[in-house]
Amino acid sequence: MPSKPLGVWLIGAGGGVATTVLVGVEALKAGLTAHSGLVTDLEPFHGLDLAGLDDLVFGGHEVRQIDCLRAAKELRNAAGFLSSEMLAAAQPALEATSSRLRPGILCGSSGIVEGFADLPGVSRGPSLRAMSDRVVSDLRAFQSSTDARTVVVVNLASTEPAGPFPPEAATREGFERLLDADRRPDVTASMLYAYAAISCGFPFVNFTPAWGAAVPGIDQLARERGVPHCGRDGKTGETLVKSVLAPLFLARNLKVLAWTGHNLLGNRDGQVLEDPSAKAAKVADKDAVLRSILRDDDAHTHVRIDYVPSLDDWKTAWDFIQFQGFLDTRMSLQFIWQGCDSVLAAPLVLDLVRLANLAQRRGEAGPMLHAACFFKHPIGVEEHDFSRQFAQLSRYAEQARRSHEDTKARRDTRKPLGA
Amino acid sequence: MPSKPLGVWLIGAGGGVATTVLVGVEALKAGLTAHSGLVTDLEPFHGLDLAGLDDLVFGGHEVRQIDCLRAAKELRNAAGFLSSEMLAAAQPALEATSSRLRPGILCGSSGIVEGFADLPGVSRGPSLRAMSDRVVSDLRAFQSSTDARTVVVVNLASTEPAGPFPPEAATREGFERLLDADRRPDVTASMLYAYAAISCGFPFVNFTPAWGAAVPGIDQLARERGVPHCGRDGKTGETLVKSVLAPLFLARNLKVLAWTGHNLLGNRDGQVLEDPSAKAAKVADKDAVLRSILRDDDAHTHVRIDYVPSLDDWKTAWDFIQFQGFLDTRMSLQFIWQGCDSVLAAPLVLDLVRLANLAQRRGEAGPMLHAACFFKHPIGVEEHDFSRQFAQLSRYAEQARRSHEDTKARRDTRKPLGA
Amino acid sequence: MPSKPLGVWLIGAGGGVATTVLVGVEALKAGLTAHSGLVTDLEPFHGLDLAGLDDLVFGGHEVRQIDCLRAAKELRNAAGFLSSEMLAAAQPALEATSSRLRPGILCGSSGIVEGFADLPGVSRGPSLRAMSDRVVSDLRAFQSSTDARTVVVVNLASTEPAGPFPPEAATREGFERLLDADRRPDVTASMLYAYAAISCGFPFVNFTPAWGAAVPGIDQLARERGVPHCGRDGKTGETLVKSVLAPLFLARNLKVLAWTGHNLLGNRDGQVLEDPSAKAAKVADKDAVLRSILRDDDAHTHVRIDYVPSLDDWKTAWDFIQFQGFLDTRMSLQFIWQGCDSVLAAPLVLDLVRLANLAQRRGEAGPMLHAACFFKHPIGVEEHDFSRQFAQLSRYAEQARRSHEDTKARRDTRKPLGA
Amino acid sequence: MPSKPLGVWLIGAGGGVATTVLVGVEALKAGLTAHSGLVTDLEPFHGLDLAGLDDLVFGGHEVRQIDCLRAAKELRNAAGFLSSEMLAAAQPALEATSSRLRPGILCGSSGIVEGFADLPGVSRGPSLRAMSDRVVSDLRAFQSSTDARTVVVVNLASTEPAGPFPPEAATREGFERLLDADRRPDVTASMLYAYAAISCGFPFVNFTPAWGAAVPGIDQLARERGVPHCGRDGKTGETLVKSVLAPLFLARNLKVLAWTGHNLLGNRDGQVLEDPSAKAAKVADKDAVLRSILRDDDAHTHVRIDYVPSLDDWKTAWDFIQFQGFLDTRMSLQFIWQGCDSVLAAPLVLDLVRLANLAQRRGEAGPMLHAACFFKHPIGVEEHDFSRQFAQLSRYAEQARRSHEDTKARRDTRKPLGA
Repeated sequence: MPSKPLGVWLIGAGGGVATTVLVGVEALKAGLTAHSGLVTDLEPFHGLDLAGLDDLVFGGHEVRQIDCLRAAKELRNAAGFLSSEMLAAAQPALEATSSRLRPGILCGSSGIVEGFADLPGVSRGPSLRAMSDRVVSDLRAFQSSTDARTVVVVNLASTEPAGPFPPEAATREGFERLLDADRRPDVTASMLYAYAAISCGFPFVNFTPAWGAAVPGIDQLARERGVPHCGRDGKTGETLVKSVLAPLFLARNLKVLAWTGHNLLGNRDGQVLEDPSAKAAKVADKDAVLRSILRDDDAHTHVRIDYVPSLDDWKTAWDFIQFQGFLDTRMSLQFIWQGCDSVLAAPLVLDLVRLANLAQRRGEAGPMLHAACFFKHPIGVEEHDFSRQFAQLSRYAEQARRSHEDTKARRDTRKPLGA
Repeated sequence: MPSKPLGVWLIGAGGGVATTVLVGVEALKAGLTAHSGLVTDLEPFHGLDLAGLDDLVFGGHEVRQIDCLRAAKELRNAAGFLSSEMLAAAQPALEATSSRLRPGILCGSSGIVEGFADLPGVSRGPSLRAMSDRVVSDLRAFQSSTDARTVVVVNLASTEPAGPFPPEAATREGFERLLDADRRPDVTASMLYAYAAISCGFPFVNFTPAWGAAVPGIDQLARERGVPHCGRDGKTGETLVKSVLAPLFLARNLKVLAWTGHNLLGNRDGQVLEDPSAKAAKVADKDAVLRSILRDDDAHTHVRIDYVPSLDDWKTAWDFIQFQGFLDTRMSLQFIWQGCDSVLAAPLVLDLVRLANLAQRRGEAGPMLHAACFFKHPIGVEEHDFSRQFAQLSRYAEQARRSHEDTKARRDTRKPLGA
Repeated sequence: MPSKPLGVWLIGAGGGVATTVLVGVEALKAGLTAHSGLVTDLEPFHGLDLAGLDDLVFGGHEVRQIDCLRAAKELRNAAGFLSSEMLAAAQPALEATSSRLRPGILCGSSGIVEGFADLPGVSRGPSLRAMSDRVVSDLRAFQSSTDARTVVVVNLASTEPAGPFPPEAATREGFERLLDADRRPDVTASMLYAYAAISCGFPFVNFTPAWGAAVPGIDQLARERGVPHCGRDGKTGETLVKSVLAPLFLARNLKVLAWTGHNLLGNRDGQVLEDPSAKAAKVADKDAVLRSILRDDDAHTHVRIDYVPSLDDWKTAWDFIQFQGFLDTRMSLQFIWQGCDSVLAAPLVLDLVRLANLAQRRGEAGPMLHAACFFKHPIGVEEHDFSRQFAQLSRYAEQARRSHEDTKARRDTRKPLGA
Repeated sequence: MPSKPLGVWLIGAGGGVATTVLVGVEALKAGLTAHSGLVTDLEPFHGLDLAGLDDLVFGGHEVRQIDCLRAAKELRNAAGFLSSEMLAAAQPALEATSSRLRPGILCGSSGIVEGFADLPGVSRGPSLRAMSDRVVSDLRAFQSSTDARTVVVVNLASTEPAGPFPPEAATREGFERLLDADRRPDVTASMLYAYAAISCGFPFVNFTPAWGAAVPGIDQLARERGVPHCGRDGKTGETLVKSVLAPLFLARNLKVLAWTGHNLLGNRDGQVLEDPSAKAAKVADKDAVLRSILRDDDAHTHVRIDYVPSLDDWKTAWDFIQFQGFLDTRMSLQFIWQGCDSVLAAPLVLDLVRLANLAQRRGEAGPMLHAACFFKHPIGVEEHDFSRQFAQLSRYAEQARRSHEDTKARRDTRKPLGA
């Protein structure tokens, strides 16, 4: 076990998911909760040299005036899943993390996010380069002050408005020319964060519907620097169920006529999605999963997202699926999902931190294709069928375990020689 | 294409599933409907030498006074999915099949089935051997009168009461001693049908919750005679969805606390399941799928089946799943399935006829392990995860296609020599 | 029983509701169906002198090239609730009604309706007066050719775009000045139909989300001429259930935090509602019911309507209601409604024809307040609680029955004198 | 305002409903929660001289070893709706109430309740008279020690096994002869509690599925003594919704073909209902409401109750309603109710305490017919339609308010004379 900690830098460190990550790690360390929800605690990952929860040290960017402890108290009141015992156990860590927060950057964000951003020092300029440089220096300062052996950067900021990336960003050189030309708002905050992280050699996990390192020019940088990255848009709830159910219809040759999903959610996520361009980004990600699996342009699919403030962090989704079977008979399946987004997302964030760190130690660079099952829109992967994505992850884990054991065996073999 | 037809013998030939098979084949031949619902029409099965629909000739056993045309008219009135065009197209075939019906046998059936059985000539004796011999002679007469190249026997009769098979039936010799000793009701009708079919060298497909060829002694006979068989209890609706959704919880490390399924159904199936022992058999099959996938004895699972006459052939099922995620937070998923059982089952019957015939031509014997995805309780297979079962079927199809092409290639290569 | 028939003039005579009315009347007369769905067949209406089904003769306006028989065949294929026996029984009546169809008028209709309107002779001018005069002459010709004792005019046309009525229409004189000034599109087709009908002395039933006789100037005309009218927007499905459930929360002092309704529907109705202005009209009517009952501006309510072509005439609606009880605890109620709009609406149309005719015979004029339970937006009534609305209708029926019996008694008393 | 408090005696004082009552009263007094859920806080009850929450003093019977504070802590952990602030505010009152608890009696209870009853001193004899006398002395001691002006006794104990009351209990004399003859288990605990309370002149509220004062002989006693009583089986959740929705189908002449309700519940209630005879009692109450409203013996109705431990105090119920409309078309309505039983019941208990006290002050005796809307099985009332029941309660409130104002007016008029 390495003696230096693994740094985890959370963009959006005061949000619901980040808060749940921070409290969750402490609750787990204190034995206040079972390990449910952590994929990397499952059997296929045993025997892999994954970072321990004791091993993590946190910092992050935020654009709102909020410290981690207050965020935890607000989340507790709103969503009810954090107990007072958990909060008590997490208080020292929350305070320590608060002391490591830095003002984030705003660039191409939705108006609603602009409205939230009340933290003095939030950067809106003066130039793209200046903003990117500031992120780099924040990350380096975090690593140095915590003596972290390396850092994983995780984007948990709000949804960015939809839109194509600028064509110049297709190569690293092109993207850097956009930075130099200060081409705003074509370059968005998520791209700057990704560029800065990868420039530092830090893996980038993009859990948000935003471009981040999915821009080819930034991905090219990652490959050049030997940095793994993954994203985008965590697959946590309704879309997860969709990606499990849709293959069934294909496998039984049942023609999906209509699939409509209605998502009700509260909290800041819901508010941000009231912005039409942000909603468009999210809906596109959610719908694309289905269209990709069904491979059928006739199927009438649509996704609705509505803001229902009183739901707080709890999402309720209703999906109605009408399909045609033998003798053209129409039948239906409906499902109702009632989940807590932060609770669903937080353990996956921890899983991805561990997997990104493992990938880097294994010398992998570019998109982490084996992490597709975690995302609505996996970078570089066309497969959306969850069970196949998970089989892919399990095969990766098996392979990593075997090569880890080989290495250990070789090392053990050599040792006597060296002894 | 062989010039002789493939015989299909349906036990329960006047029931909803059989009627839908008979009308459906004619509707497809007449181009009155799309091919939805037929798994063997999917891409993985292209290029395989499967029996064509034109190629099938039907007969069967029945215990009620009903001919196939009247059954079709009653089904149309009750469930509404058969159009008058379909009925008109199917009338000649329905009449021809009616002329090939033979009175079935009753042995260890539930009281409700006994009550239905009003056809003169239905056999309740005088001995197990006599009944089995009569089935053999019915099957032989069918093959000979239709000039069928071979026959596939499909059990579509009502659910049989639950219970273990007699221990003596663990071997073929033991089972045959039970027959000779006329051990009733330890030996049930489904066993007699399976024994008779396999004795004739005919594959046996058991689509019903009943022992059939799952009894080891009968399976031994199948292996000795080189006869493939499969079963039991078609996985068509609520259980199918269960076997797709349950693996999701495992893959995300979400602990299922409770999973309760409530099935409402009408028609004769619903009525038969009012019999407590028949219901016990069905519920056990439905629940076992879940318990096997979840591998968790703490999960509180149960299955309800209630008879709602006005639903006719339409089933409505509600499943409520409560699960525990990160920080022990409880969340839920519910689904509502509204399907038509006969419509869901009928194409699978045709698929299994094709696959059983293919397996026999390929020289396979005993349980068709690759057909597990069709059954709630697949013989010889512990895997209940539908996506893995389907991957297994796809691999089988790929292998069969390749060996089929090899054979053709070798034949084509030899041909010039012979020319 | 009067020897002359009662004329019923259907605007939108080729649509799903009108077609179901026409076939339904014949199916009932032929004894092919039970009387389910007819409110005026219930006990409170017994002993009232309501028009019999045998007594009705139909005609109508239509803007599409369609005859009633073809409309019935198309509806049968799409929605499946009309049997071939019903169609056969209705064929003569459908043909007779087809011969009495007249091209409708278009004025202020949505673009989608304009797109449908392919019937030669559909009137778009030359002036409001000209259009209104044509409707009058169509109605008079219908009455005269069928020798009808009177006519009830029912608006079953598509939803009209939302918007206020022009302020000048607040009085009859003002409305007539708008006509003379040819103020288009402030005056819409539904107003012209209502004005024309009432000018002829014929009751007007507005089953559609459109102004019709709800414009005060037209209502004033109705009062002056002694003509009853009612509307608007039939309360048939999801909104009906809402108006039954919402009072429960008030009566138990449970605070509704959120009530979101998601309506999926196919057919022409669904298509017309793809037009944003038409959808706005419909959504406003549906939401107003709830807001009026809850009397709570904090409740977060919204209504979604989505077009799902494969649903045809079947609507599926999901409502999610979150409410707060004792100790501020949040709980929820959801409902799923699966109904067939034409089937739900058609009997209410027959009820309203009977009630409008009764009201006129009783000498009532202006809005039929007792008919509030039939409408989402009842003219002149603030009460939206369905059970109170129905109690009001029952009291009216009781009163009418008593005065009818008094009249009969007086007549019977006088008769001996006259004998 | 009277200076002496109103005593409230809770049978089952350590259960979830009682605990929620006790904490709830303190939370309301401390301003920690809104008044949601209290019916007697609604407008129709303003101006009535109802007991204030400050005015109540609590005691009760219990058969388990539990004090009120521990019960509150356990409820908080299980169901999550009690905050730590509420618990802190309620602690003194919970301790005071604990000091007033007395061991309950067991007689004709289900085996599961017998299993729970671990409190030393719980009375199982020696005779019915002895048990009844002990209850009387407990009640008298409570009144005297708290200096209560009077007491209302509320039965919140577990469901009693179903069964008819003994025919001799049809009169007071007959019932007393049963007591003297020690006829067990014909006489059950709920009857003894009711008899004792009424003997003391204390109103009896039976919130449980059990006979209590619904036995005619005990009701006779109540009338003779001038004591009001009400019951039985609080209408709090799924049945409440049923009693709101069912009248809709009647009012629209829609024939209900099937109505099946599936209730999932955890906690002690769920456990007790695992006992078949207790479940029979509950199911009968729930189903009777529907059958009474629908007045249709053809409708296929049934009710399922299943124990799902992980739901704790939260109930989830799914109802499926199939109905037939115009042209015999089958449609459906489903609802899903997710509520917390204790939270739903507790405010109604407070309402009934206030109403019973009011009734007694108004000189009413026997069944409180106006309280029918609170019960699944209202004593002496055939009306199950919730909106009519509530209208009845509102009329009673209006009448009481008017007579209260008259009295005040007369008193005020007299006062100057006395001044």
